Amino acid sequence: MNMETITIKDIARMCGVGVSTVSRAMNNHPDINEETKMKVMEIIKQYHYIPNNSARNLKRLDAKVIAILVKGISNPFFMKMIKIMESEIQKKKYSLVLHHVEMNEDEVDVALELIKEKRLRGIIFLGGYFTHTKEKLQQLQVPFVLSTIAMTQKYQDTSYSSVSVDDIKESYKLVDYLCKMGHKRIATIVASNLDESVGKLRQEGYRMALEDNGIEPDDSLIYVMNHELDPYTMENGYAVMNQILKSENVPTAVYAISDTLAIGACKAILESGRKIPEDISVAGFDGIDMAYFYSPSITTIRQPIEEIAKETVAILFDVLRKKVDHQHKTFEAELVIGGSTRKID
Amino acid sequence: MNMETITIKDIARMCGVGVSTVSRAMNNHPDINEETKMKVMEIIKQYHYIPNNSARNLKRLDAKVIAILVKGISNPFFMKMIKIMESEIQKKKYSLVLHHVEMNEDEVDVALELIKEKRLRGIIFLGGYFTHTKEKLQQLQVPFVLSTIAMTQKYQDTSYSSVSVDDIKESYKLVDYLCKMGHKRIATIVASNLDESVGKLRQEGYRMALEDNGIEPDDSLIYVMNHELDPYTMENGYAVMNQILKSENVPTAVYAISDTLAIGACKAILESGRKIPEDISVAGFDGIDMAYFYSPSITTIRQPIEEIAKETVAILFDVLRKKVDHQHKTFEAELVIGGSTRKID
Repeated sequence: MNMETITIKDIARMCGVGVSTVSRAMNNHPDINEETKMKVMEIIKQYHYIPNNSARNLKRLDAKVIAILVKGISNPFFMKMIKIMESEIQKKKYSLVLHHVEMNEDEVDVALELIKEKRLRGIIFLGGYFTHTKEKLQQLQVPFVLSTIAMTQKYQDTSYSSVSVDDIKESYKLVDYLCKMGHKRIATIVASNLDESVGKLRQEGYRMALEDNGIEPDDSLIYVMNHELDPYTMENGYAVMNQILKSENVPTAVYAISDTLAIGACKAILESGRKIPEDISVAGFDGIDMAYFYSPSITTIRQPIEEIAKETVAILFDVLRKKVDHQHKTFEAELVIGGSTRKID
Repeated sequence: MNMETITIKDIARMCGVGVSTVSRAMNNHPDINEETKMKVMEIIKQYHYIPNNSARNLKRLDAKVIAILVKGISNPFFMKMIKIMESEIQKKKYSLVLHHVEMNEDEVDVALELIKEKRLRGIIFLGGYFTHTKEKLQQLQVPFVLSTIAMTQKYQDTSYSSVSVDDIKESYKLVDYLCKMGHKRIATIVASNLDESVGKLRQEGYRMALEDNGIEPDDSLIYVMNHELDPYTMENGYAVMNQILKSENVPTAVYAISDTLAIGACKAILESGRKIPEDISVAGFDGIDMAYFYSPSITTIRQPIEEIAKETVAILFDVLRKKVDHQHKTFEAELVIGGSTRKID
């Protein structure tokens, strides 16, 4: 059968019902037998029947473009963000151009090139860090939003928007919890000092929490991600944790600044014959699905991924269409306690 | 300091070295002290200095577009594919438009709309299934490649390309291994029968392997993903495994047709107080990083993700630029044995 010729009449005939019944099934009308409805929907799915009006509604996609420039695309955290943003952008009848910015690339330069694309209406910068002069940012002639990006220099600027959690505060929350559970030797897996990103802010929260709990931060417990491996990956956490386990000062708890790093660390701990949390407690940051499904579930800071992604797109379109002012929005994150951390004496 | 005015001379001055030393550091010249080089690179990174020539080399991105239409974007397997494809497409100086196709949407209709975008040069269909008439496919006026898509109807067609593994064969390989390890009651978590995708092929491989090992396939051991949850997710595997554990016929092994499902299944098994693999063996499919880092590592079929992604883009550009014929390429996948499966008596 030629699929293109399939009509609602064909579907009705194949199901042995009338056209109005097919229509009721498709529109979720209450006045239809559940079994009949199931049957109709199965046939519709099987033959990939598309009702005329929804075919008509297929938006023209050649019109307008929103670009997402992402740093650190390997992290499932960003993957989920991109998925939600993509779907939100599609709802607004815009197309999404996805562009990966290398760690050593300047995202504003990349954006300036992208803007030569005449139909580009807005930009979302996702992940990484952002230390640009006001002059440079002013060159960006389309509205943009920084999403989950650490801004070490806060411009109090209304020339762009930002959406994120307070990385210092949330990191503090987690490390404070570990301290309250009796941990005094808490190692951390962080980003290099050259990295101005969330890694820096999360490390700051770690230090502040220790100090407020009367623990002198010990530099020998601060481990930097392996720069030969991709940052924020399980592989990297695994490599660094093996290094920690070989040290003379094995900690009672490890706080990795992403869940991916934490999961890699768990692998190294378990492989060494140690138990989690009996021998070492492990905590992460982000709240990706994997942290929950890991065994044991990983104690983490759960960022409201969906809210952040949706708000990022919403703000961009508000600025774009309603010409409202730019805004800076900070979401609360949640300390989620899993089986990977325990109280010690 | 205004970043835009930073020159190689500024960098040299800040490092206390000559301009030629900065140049050597940037070009990885052997004739430079390692410590000096590190210092220079740190300053360069810190000030986001971009050498002139690399700024010149920034490609114009407004030119040409490749679209990826993906079904099932939640699966980390596709995420990794997209990341690699994106980077390959960028190398070719094309832009990537990412478009998510809903499970009940017709990807060819979506593609036809996208083609109205005049700069669209090629399409990659990623994931899902593909049962369209030749007539319909002929409407697609730009080259396209099907990547990791099950084609239950093989057209032997040279009007498009395809890249994938042999899902029946690879699934057979895994289930045959479980049989050879002594398992006779092997449950499987599969896609609905309405789903013509890889799910169907993998189920076929499962049945064939059982039969070749003298085991009668038992329909009560075939579990369909929960249709109220996103397919191929950990959450879904968790829900279905809980259902399996409540059944009267608890199997000795479970084969989930994706690693994400398998990881969710593990969570349910461990929560019930059972051990993996002592009480139940678990196997997945795909070979995502998470399957390896899970504890225990999950026995799986590792698809050559990187090769598949790169070959998909390479073939598309061969057709596009060199006008070579379309091709259908099948990659070998690898059975990776983890700690999640064991031999039974």
